[in-house]
This record gives sequence, structure tokens and C-alpha cells, in this order.
Amino acid sequence: MSPEEFRKFGKQVVDWIADYHAGIESHPVRSQVGPGEVRQRLPEHPPEEGESFEQVLADLDRVLMPGVTHWQHPSFFAYFPANATGPAILGDLLSSGLGVQGMVWATSPACTELETVVVDWLAELLGLPAHFRTDAAGGGVIQDSASSAVLVACLAALERAGGGQVARRGITARHVLYASAHTHSSLERAARMVGVGADNVRIVDVDPSTLAMDPAHLDALIRADLAAGAVPTMVCATIGTTSTTAIDPVRAIGEVCREHGVWLHVDAAYAGVAAVCPELRWINDGVAEFADSYCTNPHKWLLTNFDCSVLWLADRAPMIDALSILPEYLRNPATASGEVIDYRDWQVPLGRRFRALKLWSVLRWYGAAGLREHIRGTVGLAREFASWVREDPRFALLEPHPFGLVCFRPEFPGVPVEQANERTMRLMESLNDSGEVYLTHTKVDGRVLLRFAVGSPRTERRHVEAAWRRVRDAVDAAS
Amino acid sequence: MSPEEFRKFGKQVVDWIADYHAGIESHPVRSQVGPGEVRQRLPEHPPEEGESFEQVLADLDRVLMPGVTHWQHPSFFAYFPANATGPAILGDLLSSGLGVQGMVWATSPACTELETVVVDWLAELLGLPAHFRTDAAGGGVIQDSASSAVLVACLAALERAGGGQVARRGITARHVLYASAHTHSSLERAARMVGVGADNVRIVDVDPSTLAMDPAHLDALIRADLAAGAVPTMVCATIGTTSTTAIDPVRAIGEVCREHGVWLHVDAAYAGVAAVCPELRWINDGVAEFADSYCTNPHKWLLTNFDCSVLWLADRAPMIDALSILPEYLRNPATASGEVIDYRDWQVPLGRRFRALKLWSVLRWYGAAGLREHIRGTVGLAREFASWVREDPRFALLEPHPFGLVCFRPEFPGVPVEQANERTMRLMESLNDSGEVYLTHTKVDGRVLLRFAVGSPRTERRHVEAAWRRVRDAVDAAS
Repeated sequence: MSPEEFRKFGKQVVDWIADYHAGIESHPVRSQVGPGEVRQRLPEHPPEEGESFEQVLADLDRVLMPGVTHWQHPSFFAYFPANATGPAILGDLLSSGLGVQGMVWATSPACTELETVVVDWLAELLGLPAHFRTDAAGGGVIQDSASSAVLVACLAALERAGGGQVARRGITARHVLYASAHTHSSLERAARMVGVGADNVRIVDVDPSTLAMDPAHLDALIRADLAAGAVPTMVCATIGTTSTTAIDPVRAIGEVCREHGVWLHVDAAYAGVAAVCPELRWINDGVAEFADSYCTNPHKWLLTNFDCSVLWLADRAPMIDALSILPEYLRNPATASGEVIDYRDWQVPLGRRFRALKLWSVLRWYGAAGLREHIRGTVGLAREFASWVREDPRFALLEPHPFGLVCFRPEFPGVPVEQANERTMRLMESLNDSGEVYLTHTKVDGRVLLRFAVGSPRTERRHVEAAWRRVRDAVDAAS
Repeated sequence: MSPEEFRKFGKQVVDWIADYHAGIESHPVRSQVGPGEVRQRLPEHPPEEGESFEQVLADLDRVLMPGVTHWQHPSFFAYFPANATGPAILGDLLSSGLGVQGMVWATSPACTELETVVVDWLAELLGLPAHFRTDAAGGGVIQDSASSAVLVACLAALERAGGGQVARRGITARHVLYASAHTHSSLERAARMVGVGADNVRIVDVDPSTLAMDPAHLDALIRADLAAGAVPTMVCATIGTTSTTAIDPVRAIGEVCREHGVWLHVDAAYAGVAAVCPELRWINDGVAEFADSYCTNPHKWLLTNFDCSVLWLADRAPMIDALSILPEYLRNPATASGEVIDYRDWQVPLGRRFRALKLWSVLRWYGAAGLREHIRGTVGLAREFASWVREDPRFALLEPHPFGLVCFRPEFPGVPVEQANERTMRLMESLNDSGEVYLTHTKVDGRVLLRFAVGSPRTERRHVEAAWRRVRDAVDAAS
């Protein structure tokens, strides 16, 4: 494709996206296709001769769009938001257009240096400690996801706990990781991937009212493991769990970790970005003093399209010890000088995109003020939705709800729990089948809760009101 | 950013990229900045108020571009190519614009189903076996990189070798992986990450003339490990090593693996895509019969921008056993039905972009015929360059060179090896410092070789000729 053809088709694609975003409410939020429907409409074999780009765009509309769930729809309240805003999309487009590799500094210095700058900027915006900066012993890096971030943190923790021998000798002791039943599944997945094993993840009790990890139980578990000859290696505390946005007591957990020399990873994938607002910075209490690593995802609530998850470390050395190998074909004078960062040693893959461009573009377009406005708008809408739920006796509300997620359930008085759960699930499926709104669910104490997650910059008060109306109507219909 | 602002700035970015590609030869190939130069020119703090997108573009030109190494430059002959073509960039832009998550089928069915179709298409284009298809026991998936692919393969291999207990119990035996000194460093990195440990990677001898793995030595190593009570778990064979594009004898290695029940992963990251040409399909001899997993990267030589690495498995079950966890908030009727693929169980992260769009766009724009033409063009240019090297008595050429990479070195008669190596490195640095051309190096048998990797669709015969002229001039200057 020549530059002139790219200019022509590129503008068609830009128009397509602008039109899509402008008209996004004309689509059902959740795709209504069944398994195999999209596939059936695609050719079984690849084309022998090249086709025009117009044909690709036509098939996008005709074949693919019915199978797309519209994560950018203002009535998408499922999972967590995954904001893809204009400046992010354009920053990402520049990254694709430049097509550089940032595996080591030398392969494109700007790719590495801009990344260092924007993760330092973000740390400042969130009030994170100075020792998370690369010019101290720590440093930040953009990962594809919080799953990869916790994996990298776990490898660093193993390297430290194993006296710098695990990467070389492998797992030779019984290492133990600690989480609660509300910790994201990526922690258990990391345990499976690094050779620790799911059986060596201890589930720490939570406070039944706040669903937050119990530091006293954590301490007891660690002591029992030490007594049994195991190696307590990493605790994963969560600020804003996926299920209900519960907040673990990082300070008290940190004190336990420090006493026993255990790595503290803080997973603030969804909620951490809320700290752009000074009034929400309390969520990070204890992080500065105790966190060995900390992760939050601009690609969820902070207006940056996937993938952009930022991991900071208080001390980058054990991570680099775990991950660095320097084959001959990657040796270069800058790496040898020790004056540069080679981010390949900070992640699972070797290659890396110029992902800093999209975060840079977002931080500049919105500015700190714009980011705060977005977070506050979300929290305000969620609070309003929660107030409606609270006032309606047909519903039970899970409190507190400090961010954009509200968990609630319809009450079915006199109906046994299992049946009430089934009815709640059917109610949710009927809402989602309508195409007007999309919610997901979780389960707490054996009870199904509906998750209503606000967070798109396109979501206005009217969308939240309409969703609430639909939920009430569905309950009316089910009663 | 409103849809109308996106339309305006999006077209500016498209023009910027079209102009960049049209004028790419005006830039020095390798960035000429020193460590910290880009960072110094960026503000220390993020902006309080939002800025205009024009300012972002202006700083891109002013601050970042001097720090960019131009991987898309027709005189970029370093590492391996990382083609970012128009249709790929636009496919990726559509993915950003849609902003969907493909972690499970239900979160956007088209994202999963198109991926299955395009990896099946690619398998067909490369002549890979039918059992690599998802409708058989196997299946293909797009990973970010071959590093992640070998990690996933290794986790599957461990699960199989450990009787389905490793993900649950962790590493409790001494598992051993096998590679040659020419295997990509990602294999050792996988060993470090999965808890096997770098010390448990056996380095199999290579044939000194072809640099290909010696199956007899592999067999001897496996037997010795078995006798010592270790668990031989995975062999990584390479089709087209990073250093010199050597080809391991997959069939003979596969016979050894089969005899001992060891997983065979085939890393064809760079060279695998060459099999779009029937006359190059011999490189995959033995893959159909013996490979448990196979990886090749369209994001290197097959015109698709990073990240797009395809991993196929002959049997997906052990991978899914190793990686699948189903938390409540991801449960959904489609997953429960078993009728759909949830690609989150096929990779390290949970979240995933709609990466299939860019590969789909590339396969349709070029068609099979266009892809073959591109591969043949590269191989032809490399062969011509090699013929010039071979005919010039001042140079030694490494044979064979079946793909787009030519390894060679200037001869410095009578000069001791170490000094000759230093001179070769200085010669390469002087070429790279010129900004006219960019090469990298490797080391074989203690000797530095220059790596000249053709592969960009922008590289014409005149660029290869000019590069050869510059190499000869540099040798003249150094003599």
C-alpha cells in the first residue's frame, strides 16, 4: 500500500471510527449473535489475489459488526470500563505508523525515554512515592495487563526470596503466595505459571462486612508456613477488587510483610487511577511505606485504550536479575554503558510497541484537571445510582462503593437463596438480551450480585437513569 | 475528544504517517541521539490543563523524532524486519477504534471468531497440518511475541510431563528443557519464568558447518537426564535462528522427542512465514508429524505490524489445563456451553485486543499471491547481496542463507581474531553512525559476523546496492 493509498484509506478508516463513535447508540450494547455465526459468514479459505480495502471495510460492517460487543457504548456497564478515547487511539496509531521496536534503548531511544517520562508523570499525578521513579532504585514500565504485571512482580519476589537463585536453579523450595478470595484470578494464574502452583496460594480471610483482607489471619498463615519450612514469598493486596472494588488494608498488610520479609504487590488495576483526585488518595495509604510493586491500568478507567497497564517497583534489581539475559545479537554500546534502561528486562516478551505514545497523548490532551473531572464524574454517577438502589426497598445495595462500581441485587422475599440467584441471573440475561444495557454479575457469600460499572466518558446521567429504569422494569416483570 | 475532533485530528495523523512513510529516506536510519537527550527535552511534570493535539504532533516532530530509529526505512537491515504496512496499520487502527476486549468469546464474539478464521487461513497458507486447526484437537492463537508463545508452550509441556499436576502443585521434580546455543534467548527466559531454572536448560551441540542441532547429542542428553531421575520436558527446535537463520532438523529431533515422550516446540518466529512459498516449504519438514507446538511471527517478515505472533498447538488440552481458571465474574452461558473458544486460556494476560483485524486486513490486501511475491523478493535480494559478498575476496560469507538474512565478515588477513572482531565492530558502528544504513552483528565460533537482514517491502535493489557500496567503502577506509 503506497503512502498515497494509505492517505486515502486511512481517512476512510478515521471517518468510519468517527461515525461509529457518533452513532454508537444505534447498536445493541452486547452482541446478539450465537456461537459460530460470525465464522460461518467468513470465507473458509484466504484469498489468492489481493482485494481492495473497501471490501475489508464492507465486510467489517456486514460480517463482523453484528458480532461486536460495544465496550465504548455509553450503556456498557459490564466488567470494568475499557476507555478508548480519541487521543489514545491517535497515540496508538502513531505507534503503529512509526512501527519501531523498543526492546532495548538502542533500538529506538525515544520509545524508552518517553515511557520513563510518562510513567514518572503518572506516578506524580497519582501521588505515588518518589522511590517508584526510575532515577531512584525503582522505576515504572508499561505492561500489556495487570496479569503480566503480577507475573513480573512474582518473578522478582521469587528471586529475592530465593536469594537470587530461583531464575538460575528453578523452584527448589515450597514458595507460598498470599491472596484473598477476592484477589484477581491473575494471582493464582501467576502461581501456576511461575512453578509455585495453585495449591501454594493461601487464601487469607476477609472481613465479612468490607470484604477486605484480614492482616491478623495473614500473619497467622505466614507463621504457620514458616513453621512448616515453606518460604512465604509474596502477598498480593488489592485496592479495588474486581468483584466489588473492596480495598485491602495495605498499611496493616505491609507491616506483616515487612516483619516476615515478604514481597508486597499491590494490585490497583482498576481503582488506582482514582488517586488523580486528591480526595481519593487515601486508597493508597501504606503504599509509599510498604509496597514492593504496584500496578494500575490506564486502559481501564483512565481513558487510554488497551493495552496500557503500568507497573512500578520500589527496587528494580530483583526483577532484572530474574529476567535479564543478553544474547550477542542484542549487545550494544548503550546497554554496555549502563546509562540506559532496556525495558526488555522488565517484561515477559522481548519485543515491545511504542505504547508510551498513547499514554502521553492522553495525559496531554486531558491534563491533570481533565483526568480528575473524568474520575469525579464517574464517582458521582455511581453514587447517584447507588442512592436510587438504596431508596428502593425491592433492592439490596452492597456498601461501600467508593469508585464507579455499584453492586446490588433484587430482593425476592421468602425465596430460597439458590432460587433467588437463578432469578437474578435470568433478570440480568433478559436485560443484556435487550441490547439496551449490559451488566455482569459476581457472587458474594453465595449470593449473586449485579455489577453496575460506570466509567465511560460517553456515559451521561441520562444513560444511568435509563439503565435504572430498565432494571426496575425487569424486576417488575419478574415479580 | 468528540467524534468531530477525532475526525479532524485523525486525518492529520493519517497525513503525518503518509508523509513520514513517503519521506522516510530523509531520516538517518538509526537514531543519532545519546542517552538522556530525548528525556531532557521533555517537561519534568505533566500538564495541569489539557493541551491541543497539534501541540502533541509538534512535539512528536521536534522532540521525539530525533530519538526514533526508523525500522520502516528501506536501508534498515538490522535485527529482523518488523514490517508495518498500510493494511496492517489500518487494521490495528480499527481495533483501537472499536476498543473491544476479546478475553472470552462472550465479550465480543467477532474478536474470537475472526481470530480463529485468520489463524486457520494462515495455517493453510503455510501448509501447516490440519490438526493445528481449532476444529481438530489443536488450534492457533495470536500472541504478542514468540517469547510469550514459547512460555505458553513450556507451560503446556510441563503440564503434560507432570501428569497434569504442575499447575496445581508447582514444580516438584527436576524438569529439563533442551535447546542449542543458537536457540533464541526466550527459551532460557521461559525456563527462568516457569520455575525450571536456567541451569536446567541443556545446550545440545550443533553441527559446526550448518549450526543445526545434533539429534544424536540430544538423544544422549535426554538419556543421561532420564538416568539421573530428571524429567525431560521440552525441546525447542528452531527454523531460522535469530543469529544466522540456521535450521534445526525438526524431523530427526521429533523422532527423538517421540521416543522419549518429550514436547517438541518449533520456533519459526522469523522464517516460518517463508512457507507461503511452496518452494520454501521444505523448511517445515517434520513439523506435521512431530511438532506439539509451532510459532511464527507475521509481525516480522509478513507485513503485519507488531504485535502479531501466531502459536499453534497439536493438542490444546494441556495448555488449557495449565492456564484456565474461571472466576465468577467471567462465567457466562457461552463459556458454560463449551461451544466457544475463550482465548484468555491460551495466553499469559487476561485482556486482549482485536489483533485478528490487522492480520485479516493484511491477508486480504496482499492475498496469497502478494505474500509470496514479497517473500520471493526478499530472498532474491538477499541472494544477490550474498553473491556480491562471495565474489569479493575481502569478505567471508556464511553459507547457506535460505531467507532474507546474510551473515558475513570482512577478512583482516594476519590479524588475530580478537582484533579482527574489534575492527569489525568498529566498522559496523561507523556504518550505523553514518545514518545511511543500519546493520547488527552476531558471533559464531568466537568470530563477529555482520548481519544484513533484508525484508522491508520498501527495500529495493538500489538500497541493497547502496548498502553494499557503503560496506565496501568502510572496509577500504579501515584497511
